[in-house]
Amino acid sequence: MDYVYGPGRNHLFVPGPVNIPDPVIRAMNRNNEDYRSPAIPAMTKTLLEDVKKIFKTTTGTPFLFPTTGTGAWESALTNTLSPGDRIVSFLIGQFSLLWIDQQQRLNFNVDVVESDWGQGANLDVLAEKLAADSAHTIKAICIVHNETATGVTNNLATVRKLLDHYNHPALFLVDGVSSICALDFRMDEWGVDVALTGSQKALSLPTGIGMVCASPKAIEASKTAKSVRVFFDWKDYLKFYKLGTYWPYTPSIQLLYGLRAALDLIFEEGLDNVIARHSRLGKATRLAVEAWGLKNCTQKEEWFSDTVTAVVVPPYIDSAEIVKRGWKRYNLSLGLGLNKVAGKVFRIGHLGNLNELQLLGCLAGVEMILKDVGYPVVLGSGVAAACAYLQNNTPMIPSRI
Amino acid sequence: MDYVYGPGRNHLFVPGPVNIPDPVIRAMNRNNEDYRSPAIPAMTKTLLEDVKKIFKTTTGTPFLFPTTGTGAWESALTNTLSPGDRIVSFLIGQFSLLWIDQQQRLNFNVDVVESDWGQGANLDVLAEKLAADSAHTIKAICIVHNETATGVTNNLATVRKLLDHYNHPALFLVDGVSSICALDFRMDEWGVDVALTGSQKALSLPTGIGMVCASPKAIEASKTAKSVRVFFDWKDYLKFYKLGTYWPYTPSIQLLYGLRAALDLIFEEGLDNVIARHSRLGKATRLAVEAWGLKNCTQKEEWFSDTVTAVVVPPYIDSAEIVKRGWKRYNLSLGLGLNKVAGKVFRIGHLGNLNELQLLGCLAGVEMILKDVGYPVVLGSGVAAACAYLQNNTPMIPSRI
Amino acid sequence: MDYVYGPGRNHLFVPGPVNIPDPVIRAMNRNNEDYRSPAIPAMTKTLLEDVKKIFKTTTGTPFLFPTTGTGAWESALTNTLSPGDRIVSFLIGQFSLLWIDQQQRLNFNVDVVESDWGQGANLDVLAEKLAADSAHTIKAICIVHNETATGVTNNLATVRKLLDHYNHPALFLVDGVSSICALDFRMDEWGVDVALTGSQKALSLPTGIGMVCASPKAIEASKTAKSVRVFFDWKDYLKFYKLGTYWPYTPSIQLLYGLRAALDLIFEEGLDNVIARHSRLGKATRLAVEAWGLKNCTQKEEWFSDTVTAVVVPPYIDSAEIVKRGWKRYNLSLGLGLNKVAGKVFRIGHLGNLNELQLLGCLAGVEMILKDVGYPVVLGSGVAAACAYLQNNTPMIPSRI
Amino acid sequence: MDYVYGPGRNHLFVPGPVNIPDPVIRAMNRNNEDYRSPAIPAMTKTLLEDVKKIFKTTTGTPFLFPTTGTGAWESALTNTLSPGDRIVSFLIGQFSLLWIDQQQRLNFNVDVVESDWGQGANLDVLAEKLAADSAHTIKAICIVHNETATGVTNNLATVRKLLDHYNHPALFLVDGVSSICALDFRMDEWGVDVALTGSQKALSLPTGIGMVCASPKAIEASKTAKSVRVFFDWKDYLKFYKLGTYWPYTPSIQLLYGLRAALDLIFEEGLDNVIARHSRLGKATRLAVEAWGLKNCTQKEEWFSDTVTAVVVPPYIDSAEIVKRGWKRYNLSLGLGLNKVAGKVFRIGHLGNLNELQLLGCLAGVEMILKDVGYPVVLGSGVAAACAYLQNNTPMIPSRI
Repeated sequence: MDYVYGPGRNHLFVPGPVNIPDPVIRAMNRNNEDYRSPAIPAMTKTLLEDVKKIFKTTTGTPFLFPTTGTGAWESALTNTLSPGDRIVSFLIGQFSLLWIDQQQRLNFNVDVVESDWGQGANLDVLAEKLAADSAHTIKAICIVHNETATGVTNNLATVRKLLDHYNHPALFLVDGVSSICALDFRMDEWGVDVALTGSQKALSLPTGIGMVCASPKAIEASKTAKSVRVFFDWKDYLKFYKLGTYWPYTPSIQLLYGLRAALDLIFEEGLDNVIARHSRLGKATRLAVEAWGLKNCTQKEEWFSDTVTAVVVPPYIDSAEIVKRGWKRYNLSLGLGLNKVAGKVFRIGHLGNLNELQLLGCLAGVEMILKDVGYPVVLGSGVAAACAYLQNNTPMIPSRI
Repeated sequence: MDYVYGPGRNHLFVPGPVNIPDPVIRAMNRNNEDYRSPAIPAMTKTLLEDVKKIFKTTTGTPFLFPTTGTGAWESALTNTLSPGDRIVSFLIGQFSLLWIDQQQRLNFNVDVVESDWGQGANLDVLAEKLAADSAHTIKAICIVHNETATGVTNNLATVRKLLDHYNHPALFLVDGVSSICALDFRMDEWGVDVALTGSQKALSLPTGIGMVCASPKAIEASKTAKSVRVFFDWKDYLKFYKLGTYWPYTPSIQLLYGLRAALDLIFEEGLDNVIARHSRLGKATRLAVEAWGLKNCTQKEEWFSDTVTAVVVPPYIDSAEIVKRGWKRYNLSLGLGLNKVAGKVFRIGHLGNLNELQLLGCLAGVEMILKDVGYPVVLGSGVAAACAYLQNNTPMIPSRI
Repeated sequence: MDYVYGPGRNHLFVPGPVNIPDPVIRAMNRNNEDYRSPAIPAMTKTLLEDVKKIFKTTTGTPFLFPTTGTGAWESALTNTLSPGDRIVSFLIGQFSLLWIDQQQRLNFNVDVVESDWGQGANLDVLAEKLAADSAHTIKAICIVHNETATGVTNNLATVRKLLDHYNHPALFLVDGVSSICALDFRMDEWGVDVALTGSQKALSLPTGIGMVCASPKAIEASKTAKSVRVFFDWKDYLKFYKLGTYWPYTPSIQLLYGLRAALDLIFEEGLDNVIARHSRLGKATRLAVEAWGLKNCTQKEEWFSDTVTAVVVPPYIDSAEIVKRGWKRYNLSLGLGLNKVAGKVFRIGHLGNLNELQLLGCLAGVEMILKDVGYPVVLGSGVAAACAYLQNNTPMIPSRI
Repeated sequence: MDYVYGPGRNHLFVPGPVNIPDPVIRAMNRNNEDYRSPAIPAMTKTLLEDVKKIFKTTTGTPFLFPTTGTGAWESALTNTLSPGDRIVSFLIGQFSLLWIDQQQRLNFNVDVVESDWGQGANLDVLAEKLAADSAHTIKAICIVHNETATGVTNNLATVRKLLDHYNHPALFLVDGVSSICALDFRMDEWGVDVALTGSQKALSLPTGIGMVCASPKAIEASKTAKSVRVFFDWKDYLKFYKLGTYWPYTPSIQLLYGLRAALDLIFEEGLDNVIARHSRLGKATRLAVEAWGLKNCTQKEEWFSDTVTAVVVPPYIDSAEIVKRGWKRYNLSLGLGLNKVAGKVFRIGHLGNLNELQLLGCLAGVEMILKDVGYPVVLGSGVAAACAYLQNNTPMIPSRI
């Protein structure tokens, strides 16, 4: 059934779907169950409580939609906004582009702020727009925390500061698909109104849960938002939350048990340790890229992403060939360059349940592939740079007994 | 993590989610993969081809949405209809009620034809409406093939006959959630325009794939339908089908492998044999109910469902107590009565990957529960009736070697 | 790869290997590990402590050999006895026969006490032999607690009483393969010197661990026993126990995790509840056999086994045909008649991780098979008898939360 | 339950038990089955046929004992030899030492030929002994193909040449535990009489099958060999082979399915490709060790092992600390130095289901650990050396479609 059989493990370094920890695979290895029995609501209750910790919110309301990140986007928008509402949205790469496309097709009035791919959201333009908007025609700011296509992390704290500075009531909607549970994200502190992610990203589960978390202000907005919605409507969930049965339609039993196991592992490691680990692996990857003499697609250090690194290849190399070769020769899955950067960058995803030696194996593989395709890399150079950093910075694994 | 631990297996007899075959559980017991590698599109191609066989269509276009049946409903409606469009829809139980609620919230003009719960769709009224609609204001007929709440199977062939008789161009949209792959369903022969089901029903997978299949006429309609949609839009899928990459957003790797395994098992058994097995188990269940002296919620034999039997309890018994007791004492999951029939019926789901001895264990359990709650059942009577039928009608299991 | 594919679950009612609980299957769903890391010894320590509870001993020393019951037999004998030693051994069925065969091939002087198949060990003869043996030439009494071929449970308390009465120092070696963890077994109270079982029996694991538990007297005997042994030698284990590394050679990582999970489930249910459940299912089975008008192979009630029932068929029926038909038509695995009772009995195993509704499904299946092969059974009669008993005697499943 | 939880995968580089391929883990993820049904014998038949290919024999008879390598040793010896028989056996490391210990405890007359640890078997001494033994008092030559403790591969072809040269009838018994299915091994061509391995080694399964393969001459010898044996007796197996039921006692259902899957993967890759892959990874490891400036425990290139490399550390470093640190800091499992080389060597196992990038991750880890413990390694040096070789020598993974 599988397309290839290469001996040994597949080395999965796309920025999603990511590696699932073995205890989570085990937890999901099960038959279906009646979701109306006392068991599933009892477990769901713990999940909803614990998911809030991942968003760093105590006042938010989480929703676990049986959908993908694209569905979570749609849920965030349609529950809080009405057709024609003006949105400020930042186009900085393929995933922000797709979200903007969705915003437009949902009939919002999208005020697009575009940057070069490789740059972060232009917050100066946001400042101007907020300053000019004393009439509060802007209903929402939509921003991708981490643009997965270019490896750019936007500064959400600044967005909040600007909104506060201009005392602007716009909703603050954040795509945290490749950030939440891997990068520093603080829903309450940053006054985010809707944050969302997908199970197959930093939570290290299969695809299938679109997680949306709404602030009290967002919940309030949902009561008057006129966008048409049914499957993605928060109202039905809120009704079932009150009933204590939680699910307006059938959830995936396996993913609920998987999420329980995933959260347990994250809390055991410690969310801050998880974030520190991503920071460590991101830094190590960038040091390797530098050692190879290649450029990071991300143009400034302030935007460097700790979950994905987009590596720019020289003009005489097709980055798609690098990805293809990784897969065909070394059982390594790297991320393609998408759209504007197709052929120009390849991506190393370093998010989710990963450790140092897995990353070093990947980096060694990339070196061999670079050699394969004719780039004059010094074999071992990237690994050496990464090791020098990691050997100084990797903590001990705590014992369980 | 589990709510209870009772020794032995859980006996899962809700009408969904249903029992997953062990080979399918095995197939899904895996890490994530890059869905952009050559492997996943290659497998997806086979899935799309093979799913059509389940719908009995050669001209239809299938879509495998990462969603539930509720999402599949929404996809069927929003891709083919525009706000304000007149729909004839049949209310005969909780699930048709929920679909109608969705239709109304999506701003269609829903012409509801209501029947008593326990009766099938009133097709005489449909005939009248079609006869009266020479202006073709009716844009679609929406009907649930099998109402899971009451165990009623509607006659879809008659719907098609009426449409043909009146030469009416209305689209024919069918909820086949608890029928497709278990009951006789013929998309092409019956001229169904959109048919849909969910993975956790007769396909015996976890929840997470909403399968929608569109006729050429439905695809044509989707080009002009004005309902707002993005996540559920067929257009994006059709675009990626052409590209040969198939997925506009991340699918569940595990469910794709699971679906491959599920289809393989269904084709090995033979789809007609699968349907015959459901017919056999449905008949056996009804014989047991009769032997217990209880009434089937379904009021006429022509509507008897081979996937779920709703059993009416005497007024002095609360059917919810039967379900609760099954779960707490015998590790048996039965279906609750919903909404209008809450407390009045309990349901035995007999769909999906089940065999004779599993059902007989369930029936024996129901007998003990009936005794538990004070109903004067003759212990063994239902099992005896079911056995007498099954012993004559169960085929040999074919050898693989 | 599988030989057949019948829809639904296989109904496994052979008296071993038995059904594995899902949480145990999950616990074993894993890669290998270094067994010399700190983890495996830490877990092994808990296993050895907890296994003693299953044997009801505080003074015994357990050994977890990577072998089967046959290997456990060999370990029990060779560690405690020397070639030529006189053993009293009871032949009452196929498994006691095989053990005696092993004893003879290991060059012991086996004093066989034979009974008809269907009878228990003749303890009157034992009394005579002990009375006559003032010289203490008898070095060991070897007895099968539960003869799996005939469903006969021997009275071990009486054996101990006789040994005490005659003040006889013979070692008391017990095959508890189809009893320990399912029937009432008390190593310390009954003064058993070596007790043994296999993982695939009441512990409900895969085959692969031969569990042997030795009393201090047996450990003492092992120091002078002259039988040649290496793989099965307790000495190597004792040496590694002292070192705290526990394993003289590589154990199965998966089985260790599986055993941990199995013990956790048993303790959660409560060992006494586990035994009561076996008693309940055994009784229900015997009531069904009686209702069918068939004879139990076990000739007296005092020997009735709560883990396996051997059912005698009328002379005009070949019991092997019953087993074959169960497998080929109903996905039901029953036990064959072995050796002297081949063709004359079939066996229903009711040990391990089973519940009421599983057994009732099996009994319904047996009724249909009996009808299939021409026996004039009243369909439903056995199930009715079993239900009448079970409905009165099955306890509630305790909640975990 | 697990002792530690470190994020990401465990990097398993002990020379056994080794990494299990995911398809094999999936194949074993299952309930028990009746091993007396038609299914298990049908599968067993294919396993016995296919296992012979792994041993490169067409005339040998394979036995799949539910045991470990230690049990397989015992089976090889006791079935072919009688107490007092003279054996020539080579002591070159911990595992040959343990085998010799077993030979002595089984009461053979063991003529030990000792070499320094790190050297191969002294075949000059063998030549002398054979030359001197015109009376044919030597009944068997026992040799470990690959000594796992020191990473030394003996030259079996030379042993055969010597036996032929002296026209000596001694049986030729080979421990192939860490060689068969990974190194070039040719049972028929080299005239090996008994060869054996364990499932947890190159076959990449859990521990639990001791595989023994006997030449016709060995089978003949077993008819007169007087060593006491029951569990390990070939006779019982041969009897059940004839009956077509194959199993004298209960096998592990899971391991049989696992073995089926493992063999399928090996044949898909191609046994010769598997051996070439081990050669490639072995060579890469040795190049890394050289680049680190460390010594291989193996003293001459002719003995270099392609399944395990024992690395000698400088006197001021305790090799156990390296192993401990790998486990506690990098989730890396390395092999300890055993007995004479304890503290002096650590071992990198590179056998079983492994690929290039896994090994490179391990090598990078070892470099960081070396730095951790104060060895002046140049970070990246070993990886660079390994990459330079692997980048030139790794073949493409063949597509399945």
